[in-house]
Amino acid sequence: MLAEIITIGDEILIGQIVDTNSAWMAEKLNHEGIKIKQISSVSDNREHILKALAEAAGRTDIILITGGLGPTKDDITKKTLAEYFGVDLVLNDEALENVERIFKKYNRPLLETNRKQAEVPTNCEVILNENGTAPGMWFNHAGKVYISMPGVPFEMKYMMEERVIPKLKGIFNLPVIYHKTILTAGEGESFLAEKIADIEDSLPDDIKLAYLPKLGQVRLRLSAYGNDEISLKVKTEEYAQKIIERVKHAVIAEDDIPIEKAILNFMAEKNLTLSTAESCTGGYISHLLTQHAGSSEVFLGGAVSYSYELKESMLGVKNETLWQYGAVSYETVKEMVEGALLNFKSDYAIAVTGIAGPGGGTPDKPVGTVWVAAANANKTLIKKFTFGSKRLQNIERTAVAAFFMLNTLLNESIN
Amino acid sequence: MLAEIITIGDEILIGQIVDTNSAWMAEKLNHEGIKIKQISSVSDNREHILKALAEAAGRTDIILITGGLGPTKDDITKKTLAEYFGVDLVLNDEALENVERIFKKYNRPLLETNRKQAEVPTNCEVILNENGTAPGMWFNHAGKVYISMPGVPFEMKYMMEERVIPKLKGIFNLPVIYHKTILTAGEGESFLAEKIADIEDSLPDDIKLAYLPKLGQVRLRLSAYGNDEISLKVKTEEYAQKIIERVKHAVIAEDDIPIEKAILNFMAEKNLTLSTAESCTGGYISHLLTQHAGSSEVFLGGAVSYSYELKESMLGVKNETLWQYGAVSYETVKEMVEGALLNFKSDYAIAVTGIAGPGGGTPDKPVGTVWVAAANANKTLIKKFTFGSKRLQNIERTAVAAFFMLNTLLNESIN
Repeated sequence: MLAEIITIGDEILIGQIVDTNSAWMAEKLNHEGIKIKQISSVSDNREHILKALAEAAGRTDIILITGGLGPTKDDITKKTLAEYFGVDLVLNDEALENVERIFKKYNRPLLETNRKQAEVPTNCEVILNENGTAPGMWFNHAGKVYISMPGVPFEMKYMMEERVIPKLKGIFNLPVIYHKTILTAGEGESFLAEKIADIEDSLPDDIKLAYLPKLGQVRLRLSAYGNDEISLKVKTEEYAQKIIERVKHAVIAEDDIPIEKAILNFMAEKNLTLSTAESCTGGYISHLLTQHAGSSEVFLGGAVSYSYELKESMLGVKNETLWQYGAVSYETVKEMVEGALLNFKSDYAIAVTGIAGPGGGTPDKPVGTVWVAAANANKTLIKKFTFGSKRLQNIERTAVAAFFMLNTLLNESIN
Repeated sequence: MLAEIITIGDEILIGQIVDTNSAWMAEKLNHEGIKIKQISSVSDNREHILKALAEAAGRTDIILITGGLGPTKDDITKKTLAEYFGVDLVLNDEALENVERIFKKYNRPLLETNRKQAEVPTNCEVILNENGTAPGMWFNHAGKVYISMPGVPFEMKYMMEERVIPKLKGIFNLPVIYHKTILTAGEGESFLAEKIADIEDSLPDDIKLAYLPKLGQVRLRLSAYGNDEISLKVKTEEYAQKIIERVKHAVIAEDDIPIEKAILNFMAEKNLTLSTAESCTGGYISHLLTQHAGSSEVFLGGAVSYSYELKESMLGVKNETLWQYGAVSYETVKEMVEGALLNFKSDYAIAVTGIAGPGGGTPDKPVGTVWVAAANANKTLIKKFTFGSKRLQNIERTAVAAFFMLNTLLNESIN
């Protein structure tokens, strides 16, 4: 079963927002055996929307549309859909009740523009929007399904999970897609490809291998297509185990999870706790950890010690160390990680200090110079990295390096 | 001048990665007066890529392609482009030198798959990839420009900034697009639309207004299209000032910048410092601040105090307070924010504590209950919020609420 996602809105085309909706939708649909053939972002323009709808209907059976349902004048999705289907707009009682309910909840006066949000094309089935005023709309037209949803992520997500996916599963006899992802770090894409070339060559036609590189990490994804979940799984896992065996020094997790989640899972299982001492990453490492539900079992907290003073007061870094060696040094990162272990009373700690840039570099310590440490009561690993000139990349790479180093220390200490 | 962006790669279509490249490219191109007509994500599939290229060439003059240039077997962009143009692949000396240079730099053996990366279609002009082994490619074909770049963001970004955009500016006589964005918070899209309806109705045909809502914030964007930058700017700013005057209680910034950057700019100008005490946001607020270059002028650092113990030791929250009122309470957030001011010696501090979910809720304090505080030496603002059930949204909304509260306190204290 093939689907296309059409996102409507100039804000994506002028780059003001990143389209995170499509990836989320694609992942959910894929999981149910609906393959996304294409994702198209088009402007708030009548002709362009009409053309995109027709093109999508020529390629796929299910067309999912997000965006352009707001109460304002630049939102034209609804009336363009009505035109596409050759029908009128009518006020829908259920949608109006929902608009009234939401305005009552937030104690706001109902405006004429809000009432208009309850108008829908006559041929649609309304999808209730629990979290907002714009109704979702389901259309069956000429053998295809069209689903229009708001672009606000949490409104769309609720509709997808609670209404759209269950309904699609009820209507279509969906095929099975089985994905197996192996997360690796510390080796490049070409190295991995060369190492497993013969395994890749031996893959049957219904299993595909993809390399998904991302700063310091490569995910290897096997995807199998068929009808019988159990046999697909058995076959795919067999090839996955061959790959894991071949490159096991680089394997972090046998799941499609981020590196920090793999670490959290492992540490939770072993009842270990973690704290952090962050300078150049400025809270990013903590944020990566705490975005995962249940992280509080492992992660106690940490210091974001941007200034010299906070490195001293929160982590006990010695004033002499900072002045003698500088904040970006072996000595400072060592005192930071050991200070975190001591002050925050965790089993493991990671610390980072560096020059994220773009300013602050010196000939000795150019932008991108970063010291990373991981420690437990028995051992401290410390390493210097020289990344590039881009601030956000340096922050991201530092975080990956810190997690990779912690993973190494955990493996050395526990296995 | 119209362009289309085609991203190639199954990883986007199965939702494994979010396409951040397109938004970045769109923003850069728009700034130069190149409008993006459509963004299409297609699979690593020969027929599909050929069709997408032909469709894009039917719509636009410039076709920018990212992805599918890696050394592995699933990367078929290059040979498909050669087929599209009806040419062969040849080894390019300049590209090979670059591959060799990079492998030498990282001290890795050069593999056959890497040499193959230096092969390009005979009709292309190589775009040097300073940051990776896959060459970019520029094609002039049948009156259209095709540009193929790697999907790795920092490789693509360097090529765009250093090679592609300068070359496009040299070739085309580009029109002017002037954007003016007003960042608002604390009021909904419909409220704003109703308030400024008459201004919106009076806009001339060459100025468009868009509403860009995002959890707790709405950006109002005026876009003007024409040839003369100065007159476009004057005209657009005139309408912008009318809008700002009308809804000024909600205006955070007269620029297209995130809320935390508006605050950093304001505080830097006034020589004020800030610290944070984060529980449920787990470092996200610090991360938002520190992703901006120069944030260290204002932001001293903060505590990520996930556990009770760290709330006590880092922030001086009293043990009795935690046990009597709970970690998610008026009393705790008050002690957190005042502890941050005292311990971190900043002029201003923000503190948050709440239940991000999905677990941890109680009938009294359901998931989504969050206390937020902002303080300076003279005043402490404290407010309780009841957000929803989704962890990441609760983290995001809490951060926006904290920045909005800090902005309010700054306005009350300084203006």
